[in-house]
Amino acid sequence: MKYGVIGTGAIGGFYGGKLAKSGQEVHFLLHRDYDYVKSNGLQIDSCDGSFHLDAVNAYHRTADMPVCDVVLVCLKTINNGLLQELLPPLLGPKTIVVLIQNGIGVEADVQRMFPDTALVAGLAFICSAKTEPGRVSHQCYGSINFGNYSCKDSQCLNALLTDFTQAGVQAALVNYEEARWKKAVWNMPFNGMTVALNTQTDLLLKHPSTRKLIYEQMLEVIHAAQHLGVENIDESFADKMIQMTDAMTPYSPSMKLDFDFHRPMEIEYLYSRPLEIAHNAGFHMPKLEMLEALLRFSPSPAPPKGGV
Amino acid sequence: MKYGVIGTGAIGGFYGGKLAKSGQEVHFLLHRDYDYVKSNGLQIDSCDGSFHLDAVNAYHRTADMPVCDVVLVCLKTINNGLLQELLPPLLGPKTIVVLIQNGIGVEADVQRMFPDTALVAGLAFICSAKTEPGRVSHQCYGSINFGNYSCKDSQCLNALLTDFTQAGVQAALVNYEEARWKKAVWNMPFNGMTVALNTQTDLLLKHPSTRKLIYEQMLEVIHAAQHLGVENIDESFADKMIQMTDAMTPYSPSMKLDFDFHRPMEIEYLYSRPLEIAHNAGFHMPKLEMLEALLRFSPSPAPPKGGV
Repeated sequence: MKYGVIGTGAIGGFYGGKLAKSGQEVHFLLHRDYDYVKSNGLQIDSCDGSFHLDAVNAYHRTADMPVCDVVLVCLKTINNGLLQELLPPLLGPKTIVVLIQNGIGVEADVQRMFPDTALVAGLAFICSAKTEPGRVSHQCYGSINFGNYSCKDSQCLNALLTDFTQAGVQAALVNYEEARWKKAVWNMPFNGMTVALNTQTDLLLKHPSTRKLIYEQMLEVIHAAQHLGVENIDESFADKMIQMTDAMTPYSPSMKLDFDFHRPMEIEYLYSRPLEIAHNAGFHMPKLEMLEALLRFSPSPAPPKGGV
Repeated sequence: MKYGVIGTGAIGGFYGGKLAKSGQEVHFLLHRDYDYVKSNGLQIDSCDGSFHLDAVNAYHRTADMPVCDVVLVCLKTINNGLLQELLPPLLGPKTIVVLIQNGIGVEADVQRMFPDTALVAGLAFICSAKTEPGRVSHQCYGSINFGNYSCKDSQCLNALLTDFTQAGVQAALVNYEEARWKKAVWNMPFNGMTVALNTQTDLLLKHPSTRKLIYEQMLEVIHAAQHLGVENIDESFADKMIQMTDAMTPYSPSMKLDFDFHRPMEIEYLYSRPLEIAHNAGFHMPKLEMLEALLRFSPSPAPPKGGV
């Protein structure tokens, strides 16, 4: 299959790079790193084995890219408005668009832009970062779950799964709603709390007051999901997420990195949309509502200020 | 009447100073400023008219102080453990102890130390600060409400009221529970939120997300008080407090000043105790619980860290 990658950063660079290394035809859209990657290729420093791609199909505009079987959208959601213009050149009648993005409500909004396009949610469980131009550092994990949103071609979905697996990526097909909400159980507490207290995951869990708060926030997400009828999610999932995070090295979630580097934060899809969806169904998440309000107080990008 | 002031700072210096200026016999306990005040007196810079007290009855230990009719306790509550040792020399059989302190639960704890002593809550509505040794700056307001906790001598209470009034302080006798909880409606949101976001009252109310959050936190306190059977408090009181704060100049509440100057914060009586009292009665204040957890994450004194 022919792959397109929109956004060649920590996520797009890693998964696109793995696919390219395994022999797939991958076309990368690059922005700031275009010239560098065109000349020097793409370097993936990975805990699973580092590698370099010498010849990369690099583009700086999608108008020059071919129609693809699968497009991996790896932009920050704050840039999703650009998809209206970026995506069309890559879309054929059978193209699957995989949104490897954070948050809840992303697929609904992209579907509104492209009503006839097959959408799949990509949920990456990965610690990676773009450390310099053309260089991705993959620290740990790396699996990806695909949640089918509006793709009717199960054969193509299976091919996607096979390609990722053959590229050495642990991949699975999961229930869309369940996957998005389960990811939110970790994302909603840790992304905002590491920003609000300017810290990392380990210290939040080390201090009793914030360990309890993180747990309570996880329960808010779980109860909201249950209220919305999402299946296979119960309170034990919070314990599991806490245990998993206890076992991780100190970690700065993506929103914390955005904050640290004075980039806009993904407040909309990580907080506002899930809070709104729950609210419209009559369910409140008071502690996460408060976290959203704290995050919105200081709209990034802005220099960090002193604070608790 | 003979007055004792335990803690001659922004509050004790102001009210004790006003009483002394009006001719009352006032005995001041001082700590760091003892030598300075003994030599130079006490300067009150006040929006209502500045004045200087040349000869101050200054002490650096209560063992040297006389038994008083009224003791004004103006310590930070974090030092209330010291009262066990500080108070006895000043206490006679008819002494009233007025706790001019922040928070909820203070009287119950002091009463446990001194079961037979008449306690009165003092609720100061004042913007003042100790700016340098022996110098208090009173910026605005200044009234004080007295809530009777365990004083059975109404004559003495009335004398207290008369003395404050004659000293040019607007004073009133109010219902104890009502007064403590009404003060908490302002104190609980603004003290912690100015610390959590390292800001002042005006910016919290200027930004829509935090204005809404402050209002919701006020409602949590009001609903808790209603649940506890406190009278004369309804949602309109939140509007009144917001309007009052809108009209104030940008203000750093006492906890924010403690935070800025790396002093311990009064988390216990401003948050933990009222949250616990409500919790024990089956009522939850989720957003204020979260605020407590954020404040406890970074126990002051500590250098300020970067944050939201």
